Amino acid sequence: MMFHSKPIFSFIFILFISISFASKATPNHEEQQSLTYLWPLPSNFTSGNYSLSVDPSLTHSVIGNGGVAYSPLLDSAFERYRSIIFKHAGFGFGRKLRASFSVVPYDITTLNIVLHSDNEELQLGVDESYTLLVSKGNESYVGGEATIEANTAYGALRGLETFSQLCSFDYTTKTVQIHKAPWSIQDKPRFAYRGLMLDTSRHYLPISIIKQVIESMSYAKLNVLHWHIIDEESFPLEIPTYPNLWKGSYTKWERYTVEDAYEIVNFAQMRGINVMAEIDVPGHAESWGAGYPDLWPSPSCKEPLDVSKTFTFDVISGILSDMRKIFPFELFHLGGDEVHTDCWSNTPHVKEWLQKHNMTTKDAYEYFVLKAQDIAISKNWIPVNWEETFNTFPSKLHPQTVVHNWLVSGVCAKAVAKGFRCIFSNQGFWYLDHLDVPWNEVYNTEPLEGIHKESEQKLVLGGEVCMWGETADASDVQQTIWPRAAAAAERMWSPRDSTPAKNLNFTVLPRLQHFRCLLNRRGVAASPVTNFYARRAPDGAGSCYDQ
Amino acid sequence: MMFHSKPIFSFIFILFISISFASKATPNHEEQQSLTYLWPLPSNFTSGNYSLSVDPSLTHSVIGNGGVAYSPLLDSAFERYRSIIFKHAGFGFGRKLRASFSVVPYDITTLNIVLHSDNEELQLGVDESYTLLVSKGNESYVGGEATIEANTAYGALRGLETFSQLCSFDYTTKTVQIHKAPWSIQDKPRFAYRGLMLDTSRHYLPISIIKQVIESMSYAKLNVLHWHIIDEESFPLEIPTYPNLWKGSYTKWERYTVEDAYEIVNFAQMRGINVMAEIDVPGHAESWGAGYPDLWPSPSCKEPLDVSKTFTFDVISGILSDMRKIFPFELFHLGGDEVHTDCWSNTPHVKEWLQKHNMTTKDAYEYFVLKAQDIAISKNWIPVNWEETFNTFPSKLHPQTVVHNWLVSGVCAKAVAKGFRCIFSNQGFWYLDHLDVPWNEVYNTEPLEGIHKESEQKLVLGGEVCMWGETADASDVQQTIWPRAAAAAERMWSPRDSTPAKNLNFTVLPRLQHFRCLLNRRGVAASPVTNFYARRAPDGAGSCYDQ
Repeated sequence: MMFHSKPIFSFIFILFISISFASKATPNHEEQQSLTYLWPLPSNFTSGNYSLSVDPSLTHSVIGNGGVAYSPLLDSAFERYRSIIFKHAGFGFGRKLRASFSVVPYDITTLNIVLHSDNEELQLGVDESYTLLVSKGNESYVGGEATIEANTAYGALRGLETFSQLCSFDYTTKTVQIHKAPWSIQDKPRFAYRGLMLDTSRHYLPISIIKQVIESMSYAKLNVLHWHIIDEESFPLEIPTYPNLWKGSYTKWERYTVEDAYEIVNFAQMRGINVMAEIDVPGHAESWGAGYPDLWPSPSCKEPLDVSKTFTFDVISGILSDMRKIFPFELFHLGGDEVHTDCWSNTPHVKEWLQKHNMTTKDAYEYFVLKAQDIAISKNWIPVNWEETFNTFPSKLHPQTVVHNWLVSGVCAKAVAKGFRCIFSNQGFWYLDHLDVPWNEVYNTEPLEGIHKESEQKLVLGGEVCMWGETADASDVQQTIWPRAAAAAERMWSPRDSTPAKNLNFTVLPRLQHFRCLLNRRGVAASPVTNFYARRAPDGAGSCYDQ
Repeated sequence: MMFHSKPIFSFIFILFISISFASKATPNHEEQQSLTYLWPLPSNFTSGNYSLSVDPSLTHSVIGNGGVAYSPLLDSAFERYRSIIFKHAGFGFGRKLRASFSVVPYDITTLNIVLHSDNEELQLGVDESYTLLVSKGNESYVGGEATIEANTAYGALRGLETFSQLCSFDYTTKTVQIHKAPWSIQDKPRFAYRGLMLDTSRHYLPISIIKQVIESMSYAKLNVLHWHIIDEESFPLEIPTYPNLWKGSYTKWERYTVEDAYEIVNFAQMRGINVMAEIDVPGHAESWGAGYPDLWPSPSCKEPLDVSKTFTFDVISGILSDMRKIFPFELFHLGGDEVHTDCWSNTPHVKEWLQKHNMTTKDAYEYFVLKAQDIAISKNWIPVNWEETFNTFPSKLHPQTVVHNWLVSGVCAKAVAKGFRCIFSNQGFWYLDHLDVPWNEVYNTEPLEGIHKESEQKLVLGGEVCMWGETADASDVQQTIWPRAAAAAERMWSPRDSTPAKNLNFTVLPRLQHFRCLLNRRGVAASPVTNFYARRAPDGAGSCYDQ
């Protein structure tokens, strides 16, 4: 627990609201046995053996240190969750039916949110801890109560997600019930960085699809969208300073305006999700030259970006200046992977430049990466680079650099041993385009493997599952992401000792299947869990909970 | 044209709104060449060579015969389409930017909807015709105008869809433009019944997913959701009269309440889509016995439903009574396919009953189907039956029966020759679970093939693509439906002579790819068009418009 709980019963208004309802909380054998599955598993929780009904007219209150607090972020989050929780019962017909039986009051009529800070800045390491209490209440009043207490609105968002997972629609009474009450949950994430990468260069993903992905990330408590915006295939984003760059888009309809990008950042922030933008340099950047052919070493040799020209770094600086206005997150990804320097050594003017500066192509790669880092740092960004930069010139990287592992095991261990921070994305397990990695291998992958010193463990910011886009477009991206991204999400959120390594089919699988069905209910096209190959169709007819 | 256009310029308020804006409609060479693809193709249209901008604060007016009309259905449809049309530009950031340039007025500021009837009853054959005019307006005022004129709100809905397809976001000016104006479109459907079948028994489809399917159907102007609710695998729907029936659901979370069903019907109706419910009897009904084992011939031989018991028909009657309150559509599907009668001849008490009534199993099949038809007719429903009923005892079927083709070619021809109405769903082409049928074969399939007399052609109500659910669940159902369902949708909407049979790759494919990308932009997981196998991932990186 990162903060001390205040006695929540001290709020007089809660008492006031509650005493007007008689509790009908009654233990019920069948209900006790009902599933209440949470994903990801909270750090710490206890549950009980009675059930509480939730009013379809559920309201919420937000109380800050100075009394009633104004939080449009939490107000809109509450409305989202209300429509999730009452998908069956409430809103219209269901409520009308219920009204005719209104002699039976509901137990939970208000969700109380208590915030200890009104700072809504969303940065790396933002406090996402929360407590959630759902109970009959104490002896001084009848009726139930539900209270989320958090240090920040983002902690409260995580608590809202957990609250929504406690609620289940009971088809017999046609009410929403919280089984196994009382619930006392103290929760916080294990890692500060819990990411998902989207690649909008191999396939353009429309805004609506990106929003669907972000929305579903919030269900699994992921908190960073790593937006791999541009790659060699296409350059979809508008860059006002260099307006020809998005001529590198596939078509003039497969583009993002600056306003679109703002909208994505804002949509994500409302869900407690940071957007980390990436421009991958100097490799993976062929599409830049569609608008500015000078960025290519030559028209016949187009990658990496021309290291010899000042213009190249002017463009990078221009892009970063424009992006800085859009992306408030403190991390910015500069790529740096898979740089094949043949075009540098084969193009006369670049070769000349290398000779003049007494550089090998490897030196030039280092020169390029460090220069890009300087630009990012000058714009108050912490640079993130794919692991090749660390593997090639570890001692030269800016000490603030966050090393992004992808190629092999053990890179984060080496990086943190040298004092760098690290993000874990081992491709063998956390690359979602690798369709032959079953959920349990994703689940069992441990970002801290081989890192034993506490001081070094702290340098692992977290991890990220990567959805490379070669075969993932608007038609199958969600299906490829889910449910495996959820397996990684629990690994990154829940305490290491509560995520068992053995007998997963008994200890974890039913809960993951339950979460997959929850995603489906919420309209997310999450695939069957147990197919060996990801995103395959179900083999035959059957229940969502078995497949 | 099914009605005479009134001179739309007679509305003084249009004049009033329009004269306050100076037209900036200017022909532009690049814009002239811009794509304006419509799907399905309207019956009749002309276009021109200039472009008109659309105000992100676009408003609408609905005028009925008696002046300003009140249509919540059209109001909410307009809001849906507004958010589709202005996905990029409007709402918030984009609009704020635009405001700073507000010296440039928009051409289209109001969409005028003129209705000739305020009857909002949605039944088979409802008038879906509309005209849509988009132009600079006549000489008496400046500024552009857009007017949909229709006999019913449902015609206006179709017009709204077409209007939304005319609008495209221009990334250069960051405005929504209608290219190739003036547009004059007179449109109406070729067939009254343009269906899609969903199977919620092989896999339970959550409400959100069903709504996504319905929403996307409206984009292709499909107008009947055939809801194959129940089959042998599961019985998900609540039947208040026989409350144990939904014990046949997979789990207690994979169910639809009566209120859920109402909500689906209402959601569909708001989009001009009827819901035709099906209970498939006497075969495909094993799941009924989970709640009432008496419906099985015996606990070891569970299908077809026990023909010998009055109880069986009481239950059917009870189900139909309950469903009649939910489903206002005049057609009701009684199934009747694939009836294997071994359990009747092998179960002693049924065998006895057959002997007593001097019936063969084939007689009993006929007896069952006709008795179910009588029940449906007594509840004021027109029975629809799969073709086996017609193939087996054509002269016995109730003359109102609508024969639903699925097995082979030529069934509709035989049915209409005998005076029955028919729905075309040839499994070789219009069963969406047949993944090896490419889009062009779906497109080229003709419901009227082999039917030459006009009087007989009129008896073909239309067709339906069927999404059987064995391998289609929440994760892949949209991906399997689209884009092939759109190919059938155009076949059923557009005039036969405007849907060419040859050179489809040049004449139709680019337009279908455009529609697939439109679906993606609207958040629908429509698959690449040109993959031979449906719902496959794209082969590699590339533009949506090429795949």
